[in-house]
Amino acid sequence: MSAKIGVIGSGSWATAMIKMLSDNQQDKQINWWVRRQEDLEYISQYHHNPSYLSAVEVKLDKIALFLDAKDVIQQSDIIILNTPAAYLEDALSEVNEIDLKDKIIVTAIKGIVPSIRMIVGEFINQQFQVPLADIVVVGGPCHAEEVSLEKLSYLTFASKNAANAAVVAQFFQTHYINTIVSNDLLGVEYGAVLKNIYALACGICHGLGYGDNFQAVLISNAIREMEYFVDAIDPQTREINHSAYLGDLLVTSYSQFSRNRTFGNMIGKGYSVKSAQLEMNMVAEGYLASECIQDIIHKHHLDMPICNTVYNILYKNQPATHAVKALSEKLS
Amino acid sequence: MSAKIGVIGSGSWATAMIKMLSDNQQDKQINWWVRRQEDLEYISQYHHNPSYLSAVEVKLDKIALFLDAKDVIQQSDIIILNTPAAYLEDALSEVNEIDLKDKIIVTAIKGIVPSIRMIVGEFINQQFQVPLADIVVVGGPCHAEEVSLEKLSYLTFASKNAANAAVVAQFFQTHYINTIVSNDLLGVEYGAVLKNIYALACGICHGLGYGDNFQAVLISNAIREMEYFVDAIDPQTREINHSAYLGDLLVTSYSQFSRNRTFGNMIGKGYSVKSAQLEMNMVAEGYLASECIQDIIHKHHLDMPICNTVYNILYKNQPATHAVKALSEKLS
Repeated sequence: MSAKIGVIGSGSWATAMIKMLSDNQQDKQINWWVRRQEDLEYISQYHHNPSYLSAVEVKLDKIALFLDAKDVIQQSDIIILNTPAAYLEDALSEVNEIDLKDKIIVTAIKGIVPSIRMIVGEFINQQFQVPLADIVVVGGPCHAEEVSLEKLSYLTFASKNAANAAVVAQFFQTHYINTIVSNDLLGVEYGAVLKNIYALACGICHGLGYGDNFQAVLISNAIREMEYFVDAIDPQTREINHSAYLGDLLVTSYSQFSRNRTFGNMIGKGYSVKSAQLEMNMVAEGYLASECIQDIIHKHHLDMPICNTVYNILYKNQPATHAVKALSEKLS
Repeated sequence: MSAKIGVIGSGSWATAMIKMLSDNQQDKQINWWVRRQEDLEYISQYHHNPSYLSAVEVKLDKIALFLDAKDVIQQSDIIILNTPAAYLEDALSEVNEIDLKDKIIVTAIKGIVPSIRMIVGEFINQQFQVPLADIVVVGGPCHAEEVSLEKLSYLTFASKNAANAAVVAQFFQTHYINTIVSNDLLGVEYGAVLKNIYALACGICHGLGYGDNFQAVLISNAIREMEYFVDAIDPQTREINHSAYLGDLLVTSYSQFSRNRTFGNMIGKGYSVKSAQLEMNMVAEGYLASECIQDIIHKHHLDMPICNTVYNILYKNQPATHAVKALSEKLS
């Protein structure tokens, strides 16, 4: 009996996953929720997503399209959540515990669910009573654009139950995707969330006129701060320089196209948070993550100078130039 | 009595150091060896190095210029070696043990002395009987160009005798340079040499068409390989994610201007080693380092897949496309 895999979301990263799943040779049925009717009709007719990663051919002989997320979830055994974090609750508004029971829930979202300030794995666990062992997080480093070009990339699948991670990973392996299985569910997801804050910090410093020498120092400190945080939140043996942590931090921090970096750059150049958001017509994930992580920092009494600096600039109106100058004296 | 500091070398990095030393407020006398007479005359007249970092003003009220390296060495207590590694033996050809006796020898060279295949610290120790405790290595990350622009940068001074490292560091602290003292002489120098090989590997992969996702994975593996190597060569407690190791690797690997990366890129695009060297009109440091490190890998029976891959491509005519494909299966 072939696996039934549902994908919730139709942005760049979801479209890249549709490509991987349909290029992968394992027998499976793919159910895809496409939010907007006109996009669904376009995909049906032209076999391309009109709005995101439109170079990717959508192989409709292997994929069923749906307008209702609940239908996809009810008809699938493995459910991949891949909306922006801010839209997840809306996408799951009709879904209940029974719909998710005994299924593997995969999150490819690297962000915070805004209303409850939680990472997605914890949200699914608490809101829908899905055991942590049935939740799998997908980590990068993986720009969707490079997937569309079939450039060799590595995905890490992490779960408290590594067997579940391996089940999911087998559907993603292709000639351009190498898969890695990990048991560090929370570490991989928190790492992915933190890296957005650090990319934002890189952007702020670039906007202020700091150069490549400083950025290299900042990232060297950021990976240590990330290690300290995940070790405090969920103590276990982990190698922070594996690709899911350091690699993901690097690809985001050094990307000219990262929205978090771009947002930070505008802040560094003197835009207010509001005007930068208006200008970008979106909220960078790292902005929401900053507030949520700050709560955790307080709760656990952690010493996180880079995250604190970003938070103070974004939420406490601290002038970026002074905040980064003070930060620079703590780096090594 | 003010310190007498000699600088041997007049390339970009030496010129950047002249700037730092003369901007630094500590009382000192600076003796500068400039190899070519016409450069020395130009500097005397125009207060700028005509060939390297020519935007930097050379403050001649604080600096004495010399055409003879031996004079600089005899008249200085702290001697900073800052030639290309390949020219160091030539620069020191007239120098003997007595000239270096009871002095602090600082190496800012991140490369291998070709004829004896040794890092500079070990060469100075063995060739001139300078105790390791009197040798200080200067680590980055620090592009000379950003020093000339006074962009905030961090330098690490490492010695087996940390007090000597601190003595040297005090002469470099300025409003745009933060100094760090370390006791990891060999780790910092070997790390700086290895990072040239890894930057070369990044170039090869880029030339072959691999993307940013892959580069992030490659660097995540490279920093672990570096840690494994330096821990094997000189076991001691060290944090490999400090700026002198990871930061230096990042600034070089992500720089479009790194000669090692550029050289690797040509190899990846199909140039032979010889034609790439002819085209660049120079030998990239990572090329010589690759062979030297390979000797050490054999001697210590180390497992270094990235260094092995670079060596096999550069010295064993292994086709880059196959070698990197095989490497990619070992990365995580």
